[in-house]
Amino acid sequence: MLSEFEIIQACFNQPGLAAVPGDVVRLGIGDDCTLLSVPSGKELAMSLDTLVAGVHFPEGADPMLVGYRALVVSLSDLAAMGAEPAGFTLGLTLPAADQDWLEGFSAGLKEAALAFRCPLLGGDTTRGPLTITIQVHGLNDAGKAILRSGARPGDAVYVTGSLGNAAFAIRELLGTEHMHDSARARYEQAFYRPMPKLALGHAAAGVVSAGIDISDGLLADLGHVCRLSGTGAQLALAAIPVGVPLQEYLPQQEALALALTGGDDYELLLTVSAVHEQALVALGEMLGLPPVRIGVITDGDAVECLDASGKPVTFAASGYRHF
Amino acid sequence: MLSEFEIIQACFNQPGLAAVPGDVVRLGIGDDCTLLSVPSGKELAMSLDTLVAGVHFPEGADPMLVGYRALVVSLSDLAAMGAEPAGFTLGLTLPAADQDWLEGFSAGLKEAALAFRCPLLGGDTTRGPLTITIQVHGLNDAGKAILRSGARPGDAVYVTGSLGNAAFAIRELLGTEHMHDSARARYEQAFYRPMPKLALGHAAAGVVSAGIDISDGLLADLGHVCRLSGTGAQLALAAIPVGVPLQEYLPQQEALALALTGGDDYELLLTVSAVHEQALVALGEMLGLPPVRIGVITDGDAVECLDASGKPVTFAASGYRHF
Repeated sequence: MLSEFEIIQACFNQPGLAAVPGDVVRLGIGDDCTLLSVPSGKELAMSLDTLVAGVHFPEGADPMLVGYRALVVSLSDLAAMGAEPAGFTLGLTLPAADQDWLEGFSAGLKEAALAFRCPLLGGDTTRGPLTITIQVHGLNDAGKAILRSGARPGDAVYVTGSLGNAAFAIRELLGTEHMHDSARARYEQAFYRPMPKLALGHAAAGVVSAGIDISDGLLADLGHVCRLSGTGAQLALAAIPVGVPLQEYLPQQEALALALTGGDDYELLLTVSAVHEQALVALGEMLGLPPVRIGVITDGDAVECLDASGKPVTFAASGYRHF
Repeated sequence: MLSEFEIIQACFNQPGLAAVPGDVVRLGIGDDCTLLSVPSGKELAMSLDTLVAGVHFPEGADPMLVGYRALVVSLSDLAAMGAEPAGFTLGLTLPAADQDWLEGFSAGLKEAALAFRCPLLGGDTTRGPLTITIQVHGLNDAGKAILRSGARPGDAVYVTGSLGNAAFAIRELLGTEHMHDSARARYEQAFYRPMPKLALGHAAAGVVSAGIDISDGLLADLGHVCRLSGTGAQLALAAIPVGVPLQEYLPQQEALALALTGGDDYELLLTVSAVHEQALVALGEMLGLPPVRIGVITDGDAVECLDASGKPVTFAASGYRHF
């Protein structure tokens, strides 16, 4: 059996994954604390997320995909604030020191850490049911972070890409026993390898009025923005960018419902005043993520969905509930 | 059933527990990220710990004690670096939204948060087996943190209090079904309510050469300091401050072994050069924690225990192994 120390050394304290001390990271893995230096004029943005096997990802899932996804879904919270990644900490609880699982998991983490420049700063490994807690840390220009609370009536509502893909993918992955390899790969990509919109989020800070990443589902997450901004919103259902596989395989109304309520896509939802709207569109196009205008912020207190004729439509589900 | 949002509101986003925005905390609970501002000349120290029910504390333990202990054992890592607390984040996984448990747990957290000025900054609640991950954040003067790696041959080794109490307490609490209320209260105090040595750690930064908090056991934690400092150490067994209940209830050798290898006391182990030794003792006396000199750092590569006649003695166990 490996000791905790040997696990950490072999899998986590490896080049490419573990932070190298520099201007921001003053001390990485191995002491009682990690030490960060925050440059003058910057603020530190931090977000903690827990993923539980059997709840947030299937038991028996490929550990490399689990590791990759665990880091990128947390990075999406930095994207939603407009922050640039500085590093992450990891609390890993696992039933036994399974070397194969740990090598796969740390390889997935490392791929994401390198791709998004967010190395491992420290953490804790313990024995117990498989649970992954990650806290990401990033830097914002002081006072410039994108908040959920900044939306104002009249602002346009944008999303950065098509919706429902991850929710559809996990349904297919769990529900279909025999699947063609290319289909499996496509669905795994949608669920396990969402793209955190870091560059767009960072560029959009100072341009947009509010933002959130869509993890609970569009209606639920737009609801969070409205609640904290003291506003309502109207969505034009005809404008919702429903994911292509949903359009292909599901009846139209079911596809739309999944796009509105399915979580886990990690697109950004951004609100922007008329004066900055063209700047946001231009930024998105420059970064290869042309944002889609789906509605408007109102002075109401609810999120309304309007069909092509302007008639309100109601959807039952409104996002993932953990309890 | 409560929703995740209602749990957070009712139990965690309450006065006294949740951070109030100020100079350091720019944005607390409720957005995609927490925002911290780190004053110029300061560094941010951070430490993440995971506690699993049935591994780190008994299933069915009083949730108030569990909450209190979860925060103070993490604060002990800040004490070991000499940092002043700024706030903590919480990843809580629990099987169901049990209102009574949550009220007790958050009350315990709140008591510790108020006592040590370390409010809740944000976090995540999820469904699954009971697991608590806490990351504490604190401030150090830049470049002045106490590291594990600074011990030098000739430095004296000190501890801040008696050892073995928590290990003895948990053994009694788990092993003795019928216990007098006053005995139970005393043992619960030792295990669930260790005192993080924050004031002493902060005052000792710049005085001591190295430090660590004793969570794995004295021999194991001194071993960490020696490994990272490239040194050995010699302990004088006659000088070890063995906890009073151990002296009363256990044979002498068993008491000593538990004091050397039992974890969870969260005393600090500090090393100090001859030139600063009197300053450390004076600081400890001023703060009501007179430190006890238990040995010396050597140019060897192991931790040796010497009996009263100077003869080496070996102890089998050397700290808690999670796997």
